[in-house]
Amino acid sequence: MAKKASKSNVLAYAPKGSGGAKGMPGSGVPRQDDARVMALDLPAGTLSPAMEAYFKKCEEKLGFVPNVLLAYAFDNAKLEAFAAFYNDLMLAPSGLSKLEREMIAVAVSSQNRCYYCLTAHGAAVRTYSGDPALGELMAMNYRAARLTKKQRAMLDFAVKMTNESFAIEEQDRDALRRVGFSDRDIFDIAAVAGFFNMSNRVASATDMRPNAVYHGQGR
Amino acid sequence: MAKKASKSNVLAYAPKGSGGAKGMPGSGVPRQDDARVMALDLPAGTLSPAMEAYFKKCEEKLGFVPNVLLAYAFDNAKLEAFAAFYNDLMLAPSGLSKLEREMIAVAVSSQNRCYYCLTAHGAAVRTYSGDPALGELMAMNYRAARLTKKQRAMLDFAVKMTNESFAIEEQDRDALRRVGFSDRDIFDIAAVAGFFNMSNRVASATDMRPNAVYHGQGR
Amino acid sequence: MAKKASKSNVLAYAPKGSGGAKGMPGSGVPRQDDARVMALDLPAGTLSPAMEAYFKKCEEKLGFVPNVLLAYAFDNAKLEAFAAFYNDLMLAPSGLSKLEREMIAVAVSSQNRCYYCLTAHGAAVRTYSGDPALGELMAMNYRAARLTKKQRAMLDFAVKMTNESFAIEEQDRDALRRVGFSDRDIFDIAAVAGFFNMSNRVASATDMRPNAVYHGQGR
Amino acid sequence: MAKKASKSNVLAYAPKGSGGAKGMPGSGVPRQDDARVMALDLPAGTLSPAMEAYFKKCEEKLGFVPNVLLAYAFDNAKLEAFAAFYNDLMLAPSGLSKLEREMIAVAVSSQNRCYYCLTAHGAAVRTYSGDPALGELMAMNYRAARLTKKQRAMLDFAVKMTNESFAIEEQDRDALRRVGFSDRDIFDIAAVAGFFNMSNRVASATDMRPNAVYHGQGR
Amino acid sequence: MAKKASKSNVLAYAPKGSGGAKGMPGSGVPRQDDARVMALDLPAGTLSPAMEAYFKKCEEKLGFVPNVLLAYAFDNAKLEAFAAFYNDLMLAPSGLSKLEREMIAVAVSSQNRCYYCLTAHGAAVRTYSGDPALGELMAMNYRAARLTKKQRAMLDFAVKMTNESFAIEEQDRDALRRVGFSDRDIFDIAAVAGFFNMSNRVASATDMRPNAVYHGQGR
Amino acid sequence: MAKKASKSNVLAYAPKGSGGAKGMPGSGVPRQDDARVMALDLPAGTLSPAMEAYFKKCEEKLGFVPNVLLAYAFDNAKLEAFAAFYNDLMLAPSGLSKLEREMIAVAVSSQNRCYYCLTAHGAAVRTYSGDPALGELMAMNYRAARLTKKQRAMLDFAVKMTNESFAIEEQDRDALRRVGFSDRDIFDIAAVAGFFNMSNRVASATDMRPNAVYHGQGR
Repeated sequence: MAKKASKSNVLAYAPKGSGGAKGMPGSGVPRQDDARVMALDLPAGTLSPAMEAYFKKCEEKLGFVPNVLLAYAFDNAKLEAFAAFYNDLMLAPSGLSKLEREMIAVAVSSQNRCYYCLTAHGAAVRTYSGDPALGELMAMNYRAARLTKKQRAMLDFAVKMTNESFAIEEQDRDALRRVGFSDRDIFDIAAVAGFFNMSNRVASATDMRPNAVYHGQGR
Repeated sequence: MAKKASKSNVLAYAPKGSGGAKGMPGSGVPRQDDARVMALDLPAGTLSPAMEAYFKKCEEKLGFVPNVLLAYAFDNAKLEAFAAFYNDLMLAPSGLSKLEREMIAVAVSSQNRCYYCLTAHGAAVRTYSGDPALGELMAMNYRAARLTKKQRAMLDFAVKMTNESFAIEEQDRDALRRVGFSDRDIFDIAAVAGFFNMSNRVASATDMRPNAVYHGQGR
Repeated sequence: MAKKASKSNVLAYAPKGSGGAKGMPGSGVPRQDDARVMALDLPAGTLSPAMEAYFKKCEEKLGFVPNVLLAYAFDNAKLEAFAAFYNDLMLAPSGLSKLEREMIAVAVSSQNRCYYCLTAHGAAVRTYSGDPALGELMAMNYRAARLTKKQRAMLDFAVKMTNESFAIEEQDRDALRRVGFSDRDIFDIAAVAGFFNMSNRVASATDMRPNAVYHGQGR
Repeated sequence: MAKKASKSNVLAYAPKGSGGAKGMPGSGVPRQDDARVMALDLPAGTLSPAMEAYFKKCEEKLGFVPNVLLAYAFDNAKLEAFAAFYNDLMLAPSGLSKLEREMIAVAVSSQNRCYYCLTAHGAAVRTYSGDPALGELMAMNYRAARLTKKQRAMLDFAVKMTNESFAIEEQDRDALRRVGFSDRDIFDIAAVAGFFNMSNRVASATDMRPNAVYHGQGR
Repeated sequence: MAKKASKSNVLAYAPKGSGGAKGMPGSGVPRQDDARVMALDLPAGTLSPAMEAYFKKCEEKLGFVPNVLLAYAFDNAKLEAFAAFYNDLMLAPSGLSKLEREMIAVAVSSQNRCYYCLTAHGAAVRTYSGDPALGELMAMNYRAARLTKKQRAMLDFAVKMTNESFAIEEQDRDALRRVGFSDRDIFDIAAVAGFFNMSNRVASATDMRPNAVYHGQGR
Repeated sequence: MAKKASKSNVLAYAPKGSGGAKGMPGSGVPRQDDARVMALDLPAGTLSPAMEAYFKKCEEKLGFVPNVLLAYAFDNAKLEAFAAFYNDLMLAPSGLSKLEREMIAVAVSSQNRCYYCLTAHGAAVRTYSGDPALGELMAMNYRAARLTKKQRAMLDFAVKMTNESFAIEEQDRDALRRVGFSDRDIFDIAAVAGFFNMSNRVASATDMRPNAVYHGQGR
């Protein structure tokens, strides 16, 4: 049986204890961890049982539902299509590890300066790698990171796709093949880099806000 | 019962009569309508009955299977996720007409200079509008087109999302609201513009080639 | 004996049968093939007998006078200087074929997103080559075209001239020499690429509109 | 009495407990918190008593000497000039609070993608404001932050100075005056934004590495 | 009767007294005033009597033949077309003064960083205006110059044409009309700005060198 | 004993004889050599005896006090910090000659289009080198200059630092080492290029105006 996703997408996860925090008194800068999910005011849609179960699973395993899912919850069909697409991309078997896919996500999001994705996926890089500095480097400047040649080639391709996709040619694919990526791996790199070029833009266009809990993860 | 999608993704739709065309003898420029689907060599996957039926429907209604679908056919799960996402986006009910969604697709693809998408969706704009010049303008420079204020605002937002999504703020959304778009319409504009920023990049990264038949449609 | 060029430059060639076309009823997008030549309202000048004869020749051979010539017709001296410069550039004997000069014209115009020049010279590439896809590729992304090494080097030079002429150095000229261009050929490549960087800008600055007939040529 | 600054600038502060950390076993990504100060190998200079005392004070108050100071320690005169300039800029009385000066530092460093400065000054923003999200927003995309009009105008000016200083004109200064900044405040904004455009570049040019301890501060 | 233009385009005007100058001994930087006209080695063509007379007139009135004319002298037809086009543009009656046309020339050439045109036309601005600083400002940053509103609008239009001609629209033309330019004036602004976008690129593509005498003119 | 630096920073050096110059009568362009030091109105500070002596020395050796020093004179501490930093950078012993440091200054300032620095340091390049054309080339397009390989590599590094410092990596430093620069030289190149990226921006942000006398130096 389907049910409404909370009341509206403007109600979102409230990180424990954030309510009372006020910053240094007198700093004059508003607190940043407001609770809106996005700047568009869309009435909550009716979730299918599958999506209802999915949200419950998020709460159980993560402790919260990622705001991007709440943002799509105004329309169950769009939510399902997004979740299916995303989960295949980031979690299905691939020649790329989950960490590598998250590294692409953050390096791409850095080019597009997407607050939502840098925050959520930066946390994933820190958590998967156990190395806080790696998450920072992906968000700040991947070129300054200590990487294997293969990882560096992967990120160079993803960033070139982001900044001048029209200039990608066979020699760029060959550079990936030379360091050991298969054609299937190349597809996966392209798919992940492509996806975050979409997701970054939708998040910025709607001012999607990351769950505040991400900021502290993996530090 | 599932079956293999032809032999491999390197076999694609051959436009009628293109085989014999040779261009002006002695021009010294190779013919451009080669038959590869993309630059990655991925063995054809096994299609689910649903996808098999979908391809058959494409052949019946369009006369061909769009190469982008053949490109994803190496992995049925990815194909299904892509097709579901795409069809919801471009064909589901929306405050934006199908023509308007295609106009966004082409204006975005023009910024990213994506040969595949400009060709396939340029054809769609020409066909939906019955106006060949409109298709050309979306691909060449949407600012030179004669548009209503509402259409222009829609494309300005989509192009800003494409070129500097990090700079989109509330006043950009308000500009859409002022010309009559609802918050739901804004989501749909963002979703379509976002999608082609993904699709353009995957197509360029894999050198996806449009079915040659698109070139002549709607002229 | 000299005579006035029609009444004003705002009267232009009307493509046969375009008058009645209305697009798909209800698309809500204005038709694009309006008949203004440009956005500046300049009274028609008095044509010299030579220019009068030139316009007549255009009508006989092409079926129309290209709008760019009508745009300059407010001042016979400017029209003559422009026509002489253009005809030497694009039609005089050269190591570059007419098709190659048109390919440069379109690749440059694509960088500058010039509606007039992409339309008029895109038609020329399609017609000279007998290959519609080649015209589209020059307008959309020349890097995606199948070209000989020599043609590719020629376009790379023309596009670098367009986007960062200040960075052209001896090694760029040497790259052309290595694939077989003479110093005279290099001058001609530079002259054609330079010219369209002028012409694109004058066309955009004055909102020059291409004759509608170009859209269908060479399809 | 002067003494040598450790043995060489390649010996730097080792964050407690970082030595043993290895990241998730099998992630295949090298740990990022190496201990080099910068990529240039410069023999340590002889510190003046004043600089010796300054380093000691850093150790006492911060628990470490910031790597940027170690980087300059190859030449006592340069170190003194840098420290004097920096301390006047960031710590002397000003109409701008220390937090505001750090916000400028991070917003500018984000444009220049400087790993050192984003890390060190991002920590300062988090610490001064008591708001971890504010530090992240300055580093990721200041436009997404919730700011007062005055703070926003200050950062817009600093970022325009960073990206197109040649385009700053009287109306830009007037925009600052209108929200309440004095001419002296404008000088200070310009001085801080200018300084980090220097410091970001020197840090990137020499691959200066931030003390690892910064990553965890103010979280 | 026609005659050869000196021996080759590699022989050019030698500024008086430059031969002996050697720069500060030991500076280690080569002298910059070499005598090549351009980097392409093209045999001198046969000048028509009209062009021969034109060169003679240059020598008499200026004391030298501008190198750009020597560069085109390999082909009399091209030289004539260029000279006719140029002289109509810069010297024919116009609502723009000769100084204003030269100001456009230099502001455009500054965007394209063209050494030849900045040198030759910077000299013209200094000479026509009697104000050396004005010539420097056009070459360095026209926005820093003290200009009338009308002159500023003219240069803003020319520079927008140079940097993003595709974005010029009716409101840009209206901005010119509002400060008092006629449609004919707008055409002339566009024509001059367009021309130097050609000429800058041909000069950079061929490494055309300015006559050394220009450096000292109007100081 | 300390004393006030003139009355205010809006009083500056008046170049001999510039007062009467009016430009060509009727040119319609205002004279450019106004006497304001910068666009911010800051009351003159009290100079320390050291700075008073420094200004006196400037007057004796140069004939004027550079306007940048007058601009900082509103605050003696800032003036002293700036002067100490600057003098160490540009005048202290270094593997780079003073001319080379000035060449970096001008090439960087050209990227940032800084009127003040191009004027003041362009004069220094002309004077140190004895070659007016070299000063012009650094300001217009350093790539067009005739340089030794070492000088070219130095400027390439400085300009890359200016335009995309985030992309500098070990291979860029190695390119400097290969042509003979030591690690200490690389630091000095970085320091000078970094400094002018600060100084250019402060000058543009405050509309600092160069002393008019610079225009004629070293011609």
